[in-house]
Amino acid sequence: MTDRLLGTEPGVVTVGVGTLADALEGAGASIERVAWSPPEADVRDHLTALAAVQSRVDTANETAVERMTTAGAVWRGVKKAVDAIPELGGRMVLHAGPPVTWAEMAGPQQGAVVGAVLYEGWAETPAEARSLTAAGDIGLAPCHDHGTVGPMAGVVSPSMPVAVVTDPVHGDTTAVTFNEGLGEVLRFGAYSEDVIDHLVWMEETLAPVLGAAVDRADGVDLSRLSARALRLGDEIHNRNVAATSLLVRELAPTVATLDVESTEEVLAFLRGNDHFFLNLSMAACKLAADAAAGVPWSTVVTAMSRNGTEFGLRVSGLGDRWFTTEAPVVDGLFFPEYDADDASPDIGDSSIAETTGVGGFAMAAAPGITQFVGGTPAEARALTREMYEITVGENGSYTLPALGFRGTPTGIDIGRVLATGTEPIINTGIAHREPGVGQIGAGITRAPRACFVAALEAFYETYLVADSPPEVPDQ
Amino acid sequence: MTDRLLGTEPGVVTVGVGTLADALEGAGASIERVAWSPPEADVRDHLTALAAVQSRVDTANETAVERMTTAGAVWRGVKKAVDAIPELGGRMVLHAGPPVTWAEMAGPQQGAVVGAVLYEGWAETPAEARSLTAAGDIGLAPCHDHGTVGPMAGVVSPSMPVAVVTDPVHGDTTAVTFNEGLGEVLRFGAYSEDVIDHLVWMEETLAPVLGAAVDRADGVDLSRLSARALRLGDEIHNRNVAATSLLVRELAPTVATLDVESTEEVLAFLRGNDHFFLNLSMAACKLAADAAAGVPWSTVVTAMSRNGTEFGLRVSGLGDRWFTTEAPVVDGLFFPEYDADDASPDIGDSSIAETTGVGGFAMAAAPGITQFVGGTPAEARALTREMYEITVGENGSYTLPALGFRGTPTGIDIGRVLATGTEPIINTGIAHREPGVGQIGAGITRAPRACFVAALEAFYETYLVADSPPEVPDQ
Repeated sequence: MTDRLLGTEPGVVTVGVGTLADALEGAGASIERVAWSPPEADVRDHLTALAAVQSRVDTANETAVERMTTAGAVWRGVKKAVDAIPELGGRMVLHAGPPVTWAEMAGPQQGAVVGAVLYEGWAETPAEARSLTAAGDIGLAPCHDHGTVGPMAGVVSPSMPVAVVTDPVHGDTTAVTFNEGLGEVLRFGAYSEDVIDHLVWMEETLAPVLGAAVDRADGVDLSRLSARALRLGDEIHNRNVAATSLLVRELAPTVATLDVESTEEVLAFLRGNDHFFLNLSMAACKLAADAAAGVPWSTVVTAMSRNGTEFGLRVSGLGDRWFTTEAPVVDGLFFPEYDADDASPDIGDSSIAETTGVGGFAMAAAPGITQFVGGTPAEARALTREMYEITVGENGSYTLPALGFRGTPTGIDIGRVLATGTEPIINTGIAHREPGVGQIGAGITRAPRACFVAALEAFYETYLVADSPPEVPDQ
Repeated sequence: MTDRLLGTEPGVVTVGVGTLADALEGAGASIERVAWSPPEADVRDHLTALAAVQSRVDTANETAVERMTTAGAVWRGVKKAVDAIPELGGRMVLHAGPPVTWAEMAGPQQGAVVGAVLYEGWAETPAEARSLTAAGDIGLAPCHDHGTVGPMAGVVSPSMPVAVVTDPVHGDTTAVTFNEGLGEVLRFGAYSEDVIDHLVWMEETLAPVLGAAVDRADGVDLSRLSARALRLGDEIHNRNVAATSLLVRELAPTVATLDVESTEEVLAFLRGNDHFFLNLSMAACKLAADAAAGVPWSTVVTAMSRNGTEFGLRVSGLGDRWFTTEAPVVDGLFFPEYDADDASPDIGDSSIAETTGVGGFAMAAAPGITQFVGGTPAEARALTREMYEITVGENGSYTLPALGFRGTPTGIDIGRVLATGTEPIINTGIAHREPGVGQIGAGITRAPRACFVAALEAFYETYLVADSPPEVPDQ
């Protein structure tokens, strides 16, 4: 584990977090844990050093954003998760956010893991599921490290059906679960019999119909649907009603030709679930982020993700390393009878949306979202405008009517975040801190500055003071 | 024909228009034809007289707008036009706009009538269809006078399938044809074999599937879909992509259960037609306008409509009388190789949208529409704001996210139009002036002031100087 920040200031790392990091190190994860804020003088020094090589960084960032904005996303078919993600072969569960141990895992995510263990039949009772997992008999790993992303708890287990989505431009593939709808659902940590029954229904009824329909349609261009939805009032993170409707309209003709009894209930489920497109939108964003990853010298963010315990960041030029800090609690609009005291800290991989220039970054597209996350339409436009300050490019395929069809601000530059003091905004749902309760609100949050500081320090060590830093790639 | 303006200044009425008015008078129509502008001093006198009874007028207008904004629209089923509109029993064709004779009829509307005559099998060739109609063997009457509305040429003939839509609040019913899609279609005056074949497909394939699906769904709440679409970037006149997608999502489950071969082609047709909801949106607007009609003392507009020759207006307190003037040519965005010289003057009943507070009045909902009709999103918001100056109320069910969820400006007051000099805006498609060519552009136009002047003069004569004017209704 090179370029660790932990060793440099061990005194300020909390015991709990240190234990977690040790446990994860044993599992092979590379993680920079920053529960502290380094001196601003260091940040200024690093930014000065970065400025001295800005043209080299700019070239790399242009490459990264070019890849990010040209990535495509075509839904190719439906598989069992284990068939799409071979690492799920054993008793393993993937989760949202950076690496985390069972002991440190947030309530909603623990609940979702319990649900997945019950759904897989690895345990008979929730207590047994907890014991098994606490004993280390169930593998836990981040979705992001296994070619997938999941909203909220983000739990993926081997038997779950997944949409297989490919990027025809760069050749990458991702596989994402399907959205369960609202109410008592696994992704908010619920694991009642109804929740498990619904997962079984998704596996046995929903997935075959969707799979056959997508096969017959010869794929569905998700990027095109996302682009259209952004012109129809969705920001395709917390608001997916237009995208879901466009998707149903796209698939309905082929669904109707299927010779199965269940087409009506599948289409009725899609009719009732305004968030159905969310997971598919995240797949498109994951492919865009992956396309931009691994460009030497690039300071562009390629993942922002939360597990309810920590917020984590990845940077293109720094590979798969996570830069994490404590996950913030989201200040949002709460459903009646709940408030911030009930809220789980920020959770979910869905901030892959903002990582690639949609979601909160495309707030201007979705004045209606303000009824869900707070604020006014004018503030929504202002937030999008603010994000142009910290991004490298604009996505010409994702245009914002309310801003005169300007492209979405895309490609967060850690240097600009730190130089301007403007943290990326994220639209998000808010889960109850206890497993099983579900969603209690939604709101807008900011990616914590500490992660960017840690990433800049790592960038400094890797590129700016190293004896033989990597080469800038050809464009 | 009481309250005619024609007799007072005969010297300025053109011969052509005079002949048309005489012909229509013979057919029982009541029409005020204003090819001239009366002295502004008269307008000021009439506005002063109106101001003296403003509270009485306000009470009536509140009643009218209350009815307009509370009207519902539920799609109940599909019928043959003749079964829904008994007046179509003979050889009769309905058309958009105020009354017009064959001789005065605009090119696209003549073309559509020819197409309807061919479709009905009343003639074998276009030439024969023209002769028959010119000879008076085919009855012609406005859609508006027979419980329907139609976009562009707006032609309805007895065999066409129609959606039957009812207002559960006020008990009214309307019946509208289905949208044919873009390209070479009847409503733009095309009558080729392909056009007729497509009409036959709509009658034999589309209509039975939609009828069965709507029956099985036990009706579709069009008002609710319109309200959602306004929050999804449609203004539900020239932009209906969200509404169409929501409708398909709503109907797909029941369509999928139908035991017919043609569900796939029907759903594929709906997938390809972003304007499918337009006619249904117009049905909802027609019901809203009809609910507001016939309120004594009300100066609220209950119809704005064009036939490509004339623009016509109706006012709640003045019943079914039309106040017409020459239809303006729309200044808009033209498709390549066309310009304003190719354009038919303004045509279609679709301005029923603006009459009831959507379409151009809801431009702020649809920044994307500016790519179709011209202007910028900021100008679109400004146009909606301007319309609040000339309207009596706001529709709390139709909210505009971009304006902080303010209700759409609803209920055009002829007094305010004349006092402010602000004419209502209308979003519209532009047809080629020759039959058969089709759509050549789209744009924004204004309802001509002359109609409002004529309506005010009639209002003055009916209410302000009459010996025993009608009573103000109870609220």
